[in-house]
Amino acid sequence: MPTIPVVKDILSANDQVALENRNLFDSQGILALNLMASPGAGKTSAILSTCALLPDTIRPGVIEGDLASSIDADTISGEGIPVVQINTGGGCHLDAPMIKAGLSSLPMEDINLLFVENVGNLVCPANFKLGTDLNVVVASVPEGHDKPYKYPGMFAAADVVLLNKADMIEVFEFDVDYFQRGVDMVNDSANLFVISCKSGDGLQVWVEWLAERWHNVVG
Amino acid sequence: MPTIPVVKDILSANDQVALENRNLFDSQGILALNLMASPGAGKTSAILSTCALLPDTIRPGVIEGDLASSIDADTISGEGIPVVQINTGGGCHLDAPMIKAGLSSLPMEDINLLFVENVGNLVCPANFKLGTDLNVVVASVPEGHDKPYKYPGMFAAADVVLLNKADMIEVFEFDVDYFQRGVDMVNDSANLFVISCKSGDGLQVWVEWLAERWHNVVG
Repeated sequence: MPTIPVVKDILSANDQVALENRNLFDSQGILALNLMASPGAGKTSAILSTCALLPDTIRPGVIEGDLASSIDADTISGEGIPVVQINTGGGCHLDAPMIKAGLSSLPMEDINLLFVENVGNLVCPANFKLGTDLNVVVASVPEGHDKPYKYPGMFAAADVVLLNKADMIEVFEFDVDYFQRGVDMVNDSANLFVISCKSGDGLQVWVEWLAERWHNVVG
Repeated sequence: MPTIPVVKDILSANDQVALENRNLFDSQGILALNLMASPGAGKTSAILSTCALLPDTIRPGVIEGDLASSIDADTISGEGIPVVQINTGGGCHLDAPMIKAGLSSLPMEDINLLFVENVGNLVCPANFKLGTDLNVVVASVPEGHDKPYKYPGMFAAADVVLLNKADMIEVFEFDVDYFQRGVDMVNDSANLFVISCKSGDGLQVWVEWLAERWHNVVG
C-alpha cells in the first residue's frame, strides 16, 4: 500500500500571497501596518497625524482600500505621501492579492513604513491576512465603549488599539476603563493608545512606540 | 426534441425564506424595518427613541443582531419592548433564515411593527434580503459626511436615511448638503431625516412619517 503523504500547514491561496508580501517587506526593510476600523473612526486622520510626527529616517507609504472613491487617497497624496488607491468594487475587506497588486504601483525603494488602510468594517477585514507586521485597530469614542464586547473578533486580532477622538470622551460619556476591560477580555497583549487626531493628545506616545518598533524590525 | 422549461425568477435559498417572512408580515399585519448602520451609529438609540413617540395603536417588537453579546437586547427589554437576540457568532450580517428563526421566539400577536437591528456593518447587510418592508440606514455625524460616496451600495439600498447625532453637526464640521448630494447620487428616492436621539430634534417628523407609512400598509 502506497504511503499517503501528509502535508501539514497547507496555506490557502490568500495566505500564500500574504506570505509573499511579508517576505517582500522583510527583504526590502519595510514595517507594514494593517489599519482596520469602523467607517469614520479616523483611519486616514491617524495615518496623517502619525506621518507628521515621524522622524525623517522613517519614510511612509500608503495603500488605501475603499469600496469606491479616492477621497482618502487624494487627501494623503496632497500631503506628499506616496499612495495607491484600491477600490474593491463592493468587497468588504482587502485581501493579500490586492496588496500585492498595490505594491507594484508604489515607489518601494522610497518607503520603509507601509500603512494599509483597510475597508471601513469592524468584522470582515480581521479574517484576511495581508502579510503586514502589525494589526492596528482604530476605535473612536463616538462609536461607544461597548465595541470590544460586540465585535470581539476584530479586537482579538489587534496588536495595537488606537482609541481616537479622545477629545470627545466627556461629551459622549465614554468609559475608558470599561472599553479597556472589553479589549483585555479577548486580547491579553494588545497595546492601547488613547489619542485625538484633532487635539494631538496622545499621538507622541503612540508614534514613539511605533518608531521603536520600526527600529527593532527595520532600523 | 423535448421542450426545455425556462424558469424565470428563480429565487436563491435566502430570497425564498425572505419571501416567506414577507408573507408572514403581510398576513399578520406587521410593518417590518431593516435597520443597517456602521457600528455605533445609534441603531438601538433610534429604535428606543422611535418607540417612545409611537401612538398606542402601534406595538413594536425587535430582533437584535450582533456578532456576540446581548447588550442591546437587554437595553430594549428593559424598556418593556418584546425582543429576541440573534448572535451571528462572527457572521457579518443577518439573513432571512435567522429572521425566520427569531420570529418564532417573538409574541407575534402582540406586535404590528417590527424593527430588525442588523449587525453593525456598512457593507455586507445591504446584500441580503430579510423580507422586511423598508431598509432604514442610520448614519451618524461623527462618521463624517463622505460616507455615501465611500459606501454607495448601502445608501443605494436605503428607503430611509436617518442622520443621527445631529447635535454634533457643528462640532464635527459636518456638511449636510454634501452628505445629501452623496445620497442623491446613488439613490433618487430615499427619505432623509436629520435627527438627534440625544436632544430629540427631528424625531417627531420621522415618527410621523413612519406612522403614516404604517397606516398605509397595516392600519
